[in-house]
Amino acid sequence: MAIMPGNSSQPSSLTFQPVLERIATEIAQTPGRGRPADYIPALAACDPRRFGMAVAELDGTVYGVGDWRQPFSTQSITKVFTLALDLAREGDALWEHVGREPSGNPFNSLVQLEYENGIPRNPFINAGALVVTDRLQTRTGDAAGTLLEFLRAESGNERLAFDRDIAASETANGDRNAALAHFMASYGNIDNPVPVLLDQYFLQCSIAASCADLALATGFLARHGIRADGGRLLSRSQAKQINAIMLTCGTYDAAGDFAYRVGLPGKSGVGGGIIAVVPGRCTLCVWSPGLDDRGNSVAGVAALDRFTTLTGLSVF
Amino acid sequence: MAIMPGNSSQPSSLTFQPVLERIATEIAQTPGRGRPADYIPALAACDPRRFGMAVAELDGTVYGVGDWRQPFSTQSITKVFTLALDLAREGDALWEHVGREPSGNPFNSLVQLEYENGIPRNPFINAGALVVTDRLQTRTGDAAGTLLEFLRAESGNERLAFDRDIAASETANGDRNAALAHFMASYGNIDNPVPVLLDQYFLQCSIAASCADLALATGFLARHGIRADGGRLLSRSQAKQINAIMLTCGTYDAAGDFAYRVGLPGKSGVGGGIIAVVPGRCTLCVWSPGLDDRGNSVAGVAALDRFTTLTGLSVF
Amino acid sequence: MAIMPGNSSQPSSLTFQPVLERIATEIAQTPGRGRPADYIPALAACDPRRFGMAVAELDGTVYGVGDWRQPFSTQSITKVFTLALDLAREGDALWEHVGREPSGNPFNSLVQLEYENGIPRNPFINAGALVVTDRLQTRTGDAAGTLLEFLRAESGNERLAFDRDIAASETANGDRNAALAHFMASYGNIDNPVPVLLDQYFLQCSIAASCADLALATGFLARHGIRADGGRLLSRSQAKQINAIMLTCGTYDAAGDFAYRVGLPGKSGVGGGIIAVVPGRCTLCVWSPGLDDRGNSVAGVAALDRFTTLTGLSVF
Amino acid sequence: MAIMPGNSSQPSSLTFQPVLERIATEIAQTPGRGRPADYIPALAACDPRRFGMAVAELDGTVYGVGDWRQPFSTQSITKVFTLALDLAREGDALWEHVGREPSGNPFNSLVQLEYENGIPRNPFINAGALVVTDRLQTRTGDAAGTLLEFLRAESGNERLAFDRDIAASETANGDRNAALAHFMASYGNIDNPVPVLLDQYFLQCSIAASCADLALATGFLARHGIRADGGRLLSRSQAKQINAIMLTCGTYDAAGDFAYRVGLPGKSGVGGGIIAVVPGRCTLCVWSPGLDDRGNSVAGVAALDRFTTLTGLSVF
Repeated sequence: MAIMPGNSSQPSSLTFQPVLERIATEIAQTPGRGRPADYIPALAACDPRRFGMAVAELDGTVYGVGDWRQPFSTQSITKVFTLALDLAREGDALWEHVGREPSGNPFNSLVQLEYENGIPRNPFINAGALVVTDRLQTRTGDAAGTLLEFLRAESGNERLAFDRDIAASETANGDRNAALAHFMASYGNIDNPVPVLLDQYFLQCSIAASCADLALATGFLARHGIRADGGRLLSRSQAKQINAIMLTCGTYDAAGDFAYRVGLPGKSGVGGGIIAVVPGRCTLCVWSPGLDDRGNSVAGVAALDRFTTLTGLSVF
Repeated sequence: MAIMPGNSSQPSSLTFQPVLERIATEIAQTPGRGRPADYIPALAACDPRRFGMAVAELDGTVYGVGDWRQPFSTQSITKVFTLALDLAREGDALWEHVGREPSGNPFNSLVQLEYENGIPRNPFINAGALVVTDRLQTRTGDAAGTLLEFLRAESGNERLAFDRDIAASETANGDRNAALAHFMASYGNIDNPVPVLLDQYFLQCSIAASCADLALATGFLARHGIRADGGRLLSRSQAKQINAIMLTCGTYDAAGDFAYRVGLPGKSGVGGGIIAVVPGRCTLCVWSPGLDDRGNSVAGVAALDRFTTLTGLSVF
Repeated sequence: MAIMPGNSSQPSSLTFQPVLERIATEIAQTPGRGRPADYIPALAACDPRRFGMAVAELDGTVYGVGDWRQPFSTQSITKVFTLALDLAREGDALWEHVGREPSGNPFNSLVQLEYENGIPRNPFINAGALVVTDRLQTRTGDAAGTLLEFLRAESGNERLAFDRDIAASETANGDRNAALAHFMASYGNIDNPVPVLLDQYFLQCSIAASCADLALATGFLARHGIRADGGRLLSRSQAKQINAIMLTCGTYDAAGDFAYRVGLPGKSGVGGGIIAVVPGRCTLCVWSPGLDDRGNSVAGVAALDRFTTLTGLSVF
Repeated sequence: MAIMPGNSSQPSSLTFQPVLERIATEIAQTPGRGRPADYIPALAACDPRRFGMAVAELDGTVYGVGDWRQPFSTQSITKVFTLALDLAREGDALWEHVGREPSGNPFNSLVQLEYENGIPRNPFINAGALVVTDRLQTRTGDAAGTLLEFLRAESGNERLAFDRDIAASETANGDRNAALAHFMASYGNIDNPVPVLLDQYFLQCSIAASCADLALATGFLARHGIRADGGRLLSRSQAKQINAIMLTCGTYDAAGDFAYRVGLPGKSGVGGGIIAVVPGRCTLCVWSPGLDDRGNSVAGVAALDRFTTLTGLSVF
């Protein structure tokens, strides 16, 4: 049934193009299900029927289908890159300020933060991403700019940019993130002034990029830490560690379900995008704005589920 | 640095024996750290300096080092097998009664159970394992016996048996599990009388087995659902799903840390054992009674960490 | 507007009879609102239009209106008497096993019990009443019998009895209380076997009594600890303390609202009864089976609200 | 034993002066116990051995002992006055924005706020006081100024003033209150910009006043809503309601204990002051900076305990 040899120990010489086309056909009815995020107007206005998917091989070859060259709002997907950029600079000292355990039910986020003295459970919940951004800001003086420069370099797309309208909308709706930041600051776990931190945080989330851009930018995680230009960003061990955190914490309160269905390290955003990693083999990005009730793209998860079923490229 | 070719896509013809011996040497100072579980006398009496480790290849070849043939109390490790045995019978209907998401901080276990109407987060927390045992009991009339028979068959060790002293000790200390069972029963999520269920549950946890036994018994998860005798217990997809749940939920509130350090699906028990799976390649079991403050064997985690570092056999 | 002199410092020589009749007229439309408790059939079968109210003066003179002589299921009202009976025997040592602070939202009951190491917040939540019953059982060997004997003596009604059908229904629906008892036992805060404790607990709750019976039985709290026969059950300070706990904890998660509207120490039960105390002056019992969403009798609270408004006999 | 007739139904013509002097003698060893609040330097610098106590009769006659004319930082005591001032303007509509139930364990404050959609449990926890201040600010344009003017008028002390150093210190340590305000704003339960609200809130808490000032300013609650000049601030029912909320929620997580020991409506502040009300009879204020582990003045609670024991002037 597999259209590629169904075992990660025997990588195929076939290209991914027919796989992507078959997936697009098979899930053609899925885009449009779910609902775009509606807490800011720019996201709510997205057409939920949009769908794109891209696969990038280790050497930068990219395959795509649908709206795979259409920029969308990256949102929480950028948390992966911010984590990598800070970890590259700070190393394990970061883990004194943020954990790497799944957070359980979102209902408990605040009580957990209180119970654990202002140390968020992992870098991919909002509280944890605020801490990582704060630390990257301290180390670079320009967390959002550092991130944008990295994404441009890895994707080769110099036109990547902040969407300042989206950032402004986020700020106007930012009371909950402000609450988290002040709460952690009360435990001494935030270095920068909260308004500065929030500006940096919302700028990062506002970056627009396409499936092709993001599949390429994620490549360093499949290449065990090596950037597109051959330089090393992370040690082999650090790259593996980020993959592990993506698998256990990358899709909000559906990480278990995502691991169960897809079986790849992944990170989703409320813009409808999801990136995923097949270590040593390739990276993926899929986009479709309709979200399920846990905030993950309905068609995106379905497409990745089909991908691992068709190719056997799951880590399990 | 790797003494085996460091990539899971290129399986080695070398045996695992030298790897195990090197690990035993390298971590020689670790056994003895941590503390054995002390809530029942039989566990507290274990010598924390004991250490054993076994690797089983897909064909049943087993390698071992240290106390790898010494039986120890399996405890929560059996939750994996009970899950597989029920899933094989019940299929996806099981997931209406237990979730598959990490549970977050143990502090929140009860409030989460209350918030989510008596549906435990996953099959590996005690509440979830009680539900799975209850369902297997309903389907077989003898959950513990079904489990024991399975472990004997897969390990080829007919002497495996319940330790009724340990089961009695657990019962005498079983108020917290009784509370969980009654609490879920109040939501209609338990079928059998609570005392019957607790008997079955504690019998399962009491089984004594060695690293060799457990590495062999876990083989079906590396063989994508195929039992030792070539028969199929689980579909390929179900085997992958159990691996995913082990990775995200298998080591109490340290699943993220275990994924980060070891990078393999694993399940630990308070007897000091840990089983782990390299899908398509081999299975492992390590044992050393000294536990860290999250209930996982200190030397066991360290040995698995060394194993994936030395062999490159991580899923990430 | 007050039909009695509106100040507790000037007790009236008038009888309470016209007050009760006026209240019954004014709230004639209220009985029937709310819903009887439906978790056991015997309670669900109650006619929500029933309404009775009684006032007992310090000397045992009783006034009544409506169904004030009709027995109903006392349920949690008995928690007050069990507390008094244990406190009389044990004194302040009791407070090492149960607190006296309001419990906040019921959602948090279990997490609070966990956070506070198995010590319930107060004697009137179920967990706390289980602890008090357990301790009275240890001291008397027959907690329920001790309670029944006390109620008979204070009310002068020798026909008061357990309703064993209701007790059996409670037992059959007792999983949540069993969970609480086992959970506290896991912290060492329960002395007796859980099944023994639950039997005693459910027997107590099953006692049927009328408004007249309960208003009389509550008299010792208005008489600063003196029983109907002139003997002392509690010290003046202990009687005051029980009144304080009733005011802050007596009506589930509506204690603040009850204090705000009624302004008297009170204790409600899901059978639709509420007892209340005007220290130094009189005691009340009102009954109507329709409950609000926090478990208190709709007509009962309304009638007590009218009583304190009409008489000025609030503690504030 | 009582040096005043021991029953609230027989008020004495004796003055309170000898009672206060006896209390001061009896608890002479208590001031100095506990620890002053240390989260801002101005409070930490207080001498814990200071002790003052004042009683004001309904007509404004004041008795005092010790440091009863020494101004101290009122802190949370002002929450009572802000509540009264807003309730006088807004009436029951306020209760759509803040509850009146005890909050239970402080650990749960944030989770409760989340569980109950940004509606704080009562006006005396910080979250609730922020809401009340926000609403008074909306209605007056100057919440803190309105409060200061009221306190000056009721106490007759025109020198009462904000302590801007303390307000600045609070602001510098205000991350937790900022978190609460932003969190409630995310639910739409805050009208004013968070920085404006925090300024108003911290200014209120900074007011310095003496026991004499505060006993007088509290008089309207003993006079059933009537101000010092004879005008009506609150209806009789509203005054009773504020007393009820003080009794059930006025002393942090020790409201049950305070009711149990003292038996009067009271409100404490971390500056070491406590006000209390004997409805229809008198008001009290006691001050001593050493706090117990729940934030209430050790000597203050002890002195009020002695007062109700000696005079019988408890509400129970």
